[in-house]
Amino acid sequence: MPAALQGALLEELTDLLDSGRLDSALARVEGLHHADLARVLSNLPRADAETLFVGLDAPFAAEVLAEIDDALCEALLEDVGQERLTRLLNALDSDDAADVMARLPQPMQSLVLPRLQDAEAVKGLMKYDEETAGGIMAKELVAVSPAWTISEATEEVRRNRETVEELYVIFVVDDDRRLEGFVSIKRMLLSPSDALIGDVMERNVHTVTTSTDQEEAVRIMERYDLISLAVVDEQHRLVGRVTIDDAVDVIREEAEEDYQRLSGITGDEEPSASVGRITRGRLPWLMLGMAGAAFAGTVIGYFEETIRQASILAAFIPVVMAMAGNAGIQSSAIMVQGLASGNPWSSNILRRLSKEVLVATINGTALALVLALIVVLVFMLGADFLSESGGAQPVRLAATAALSLFVVILIAAAVGTTIPLVLHRAGIDPALATGPFITTSNDIIGLVVFFVLAATLYLPFV
Amino acid sequence: MPAALQGALLEELTDLLDSGRLDSALARVEGLHHADLARVLSNLPRADAETLFVGLDAPFAAEVLAEIDDALCEALLEDVGQERLTRLLNALDSDDAADVMARLPQPMQSLVLPRLQDAEAVKGLMKYDEETAGGIMAKELVAVSPAWTISEATEEVRRNRETVEELYVIFVVDDDRRLEGFVSIKRMLLSPSDALIGDVMERNVHTVTTSTDQEEAVRIMERYDLISLAVVDEQHRLVGRVTIDDAVDVIREEAEEDYQRLSGITGDEEPSASVGRITRGRLPWLMLGMAGAAFAGTVIGYFEETIRQASILAAFIPVVMAMAGNAGIQSSAIMVQGLASGNPWSSNILRRLSKEVLVATINGTALALVLALIVVLVFMLGADFLSESGGAQPVRLAATAALSLFVVILIAAAVGTTIPLVLHRAGIDPALATGPFITTSNDIIGLVVFFVLAATLYLPFV
Repeated sequence: MPAALQGALLEELTDLLDSGRLDSALARVEGLHHADLARVLSNLPRADAETLFVGLDAPFAAEVLAEIDDALCEALLEDVGQERLTRLLNALDSDDAADVMARLPQPMQSLVLPRLQDAEAVKGLMKYDEETAGGIMAKELVAVSPAWTISEATEEVRRNRETVEELYVIFVVDDDRRLEGFVSIKRMLLSPSDALIGDVMERNVHTVTTSTDQEEAVRIMERYDLISLAVVDEQHRLVGRVTIDDAVDVIREEAEEDYQRLSGITGDEEPSASVGRITRGRLPWLMLGMAGAAFAGTVIGYFEETIRQASILAAFIPVVMAMAGNAGIQSSAIMVQGLASGNPWSSNILRRLSKEVLVATINGTALALVLALIVVLVFMLGADFLSESGGAQPVRLAATAALSLFVVILIAAAVGTTIPLVLHRAGIDPALATGPFITTSNDIIGLVVFFVLAATLYLPFV
Repeated sequence: MPAALQGALLEELTDLLDSGRLDSALARVEGLHHADLARVLSNLPRADAETLFVGLDAPFAAEVLAEIDDALCEALLEDVGQERLTRLLNALDSDDAADVMARLPQPMQSLVLPRLQDAEAVKGLMKYDEETAGGIMAKELVAVSPAWTISEATEEVRRNRETVEELYVIFVVDDDRRLEGFVSIKRMLLSPSDALIGDVMERNVHTVTTSTDQEEAVRIMERYDLISLAVVDEQHRLVGRVTIDDAVDVIREEAEEDYQRLSGITGDEEPSASVGRITRGRLPWLMLGMAGAAFAGTVIGYFEETIRQASILAAFIPVVMAMAGNAGIQSSAIMVQGLASGNPWSSNILRRLSKEVLVATINGTALALVLALIVVLVFMLGADFLSESGGAQPVRLAATAALSLFVVILIAAAVGTTIPLVLHRAGIDPALATGPFITTSNDIIGLVVFFVLAATLYLPFV
């Protein structure tokens, strides 16, 4: 649904709901795709969203529920009765039901769980860590014996046609449910109905275990173009499958999380998140950034005698800080992406580092020359002001600033390249190292370099 | 393949190739998945990768080619003869062949194109913009008439089994190839063989046109959990399909591009990119950042009289700059993500802005209090140094710094929220607005606010 259409629908719904015409509002959203209605609900005022949600039929409401973000889901379920909640959860696949269950308060979970059709499956899924293959897999799948014929397997697909809606491959397991292979639905369609599954199945099957990190599972699906990935337990018994639509959700979530981390936000901030939750995700990084900046401030304080003698030097603080930060982030971004995609950088870190140093040398030279030019130009335009504030030697000042900038960019690139790798080797997610952290350390190093060089090369000649 | 294994394989291959044992190296990679070999090639020294690639069989080499990044692909194809190139391209799907073709020099394209089996399809695909649905779609698909029976359609699937490997739905078109619906392979498997396609087909089919932006096409697949999306021309005639594996590649690429843009890198930097290409992607942003920082420097220069009277004020520059930048980026990141995901923010921008202002008020208050505390503590620890550099009134200095910080954070949040929206309305991709750009404008505003407040509230009392 295009954004413009959706905007119009939102206004219409708000009007209808505000004037108490729930039935008209419900008629208006009837026939919408559940994903579209989920987007509409996310953009309605909270109270309107709740009113509308209560009026939806259980199976439709359930599908909508599986599409919306955590904060809204919790709000919508807050006042839902046990009866309706059970009906909602029964209408969902086991993985979605487990996700919704996990957002309910503990007492509600205990009340509702025993009443579910799939109680065992949902309970089983809830025990897995959310960030693992077990946490994103669904229990709904079709598994057959290698001794079956194609037509027997087809009957099994037919029996499960309602519960396993999205089906592209069926899995082949032995009597102990150990995974032996898979058969694509296309292969089934093209095989004679009396052919044996064991004869047509593909034995080379990619698997992950329930404890495999979800990102790793998704990378495997991506690399080998899989639509459906088998999840097995420690004994290689088939326990679930990850489907590509859930994998896509993981890719999107992880990408948004990385983007937010680079922006200094933790905790996966959703548009509908409460002010309290947003603050909790942002304030820690701001505090960390301020601690770093306060430290950078004491570095400047340490050189305040230098600044008093030539206050013009203070005007270079922004350039040093901005360039150290920007160059460092550029280098680290490439390292973080490389490490995240599982490239074996470790074997050629020297090649990477030398490339970064080479790029920094070129960029640093270009920037240093431009900065020197700017300083000389400013001097020619306003010489009085410069000499008064300690800028009596414009060429020397330009040379000192240019040299500092060059050194700062070189160091920033090396730091930006190295820190993510060190963190990775230490078992810490390098995505955490970027953003505010790299910027702050490079700011401090940059300021020290600049003031030391200024105090040594420039100040004695003013 | 785990990174450790791959590291060992890389060393082994380098040793074999360096000692001229190409056959042993080829035997070593035989049986590898093409995606794994692509990763190995990307991490070998360029010369070794070229030697190994030349030795690969054409169909396998082609599959590897489709998985590697642009820079390496160009290098590997540089010295490949016409003959082998034709064989490589013939082994690829039309969309992959068109992508590889696009990386070849013009004269080579003209030589090879007429010799391809799918010359028409490849030529047709090459005319679409790379960033559109036309640019990522494949021509390989199965289309049937509504008048056909299931068994006739099955025969059509069988005829195309080699060329259309990944098949989950078949499309239904009329005599003019206008799209009427689709049938899933699962549905075909479960339907009687004499049923008519027109009777079992799903008519509610999502489509995009060849000129639809690739991100929009992928969002549709994501939202409606599609494995395969029909691409039609202006007359609603079926011309191709986008498959989920290609959609996943787009999601990953766009996410990496957004991450790089936020880091001040344009042009989609790949790990194997040359130094020249890396520099071109980074230097423009650094120049822009330096221009902004130089401007921020002149702001400080404008207040140099203030600094000369109280050089301690220079120590607050890092805090003001860091906090203005960080808070602005946090706010803009959420806006950019919301706009990219097509949320109709425009209808409730006031709600978003008031939320951001509320968060900024809370964070600004907390940070201002901590900063005031830090200033007073530093004063108690080193009173002499402070009074000498113009910090004779520590409580007043703390209060001025705290107030400035609060105002700066509030403004930064408002700017970070508003700029992406303004750009979006003006038809400019807001992802470009974040990173260096927002940081720089907030730096300048922040410094002006700080020095104006310091000159007004603090300086007269020193």
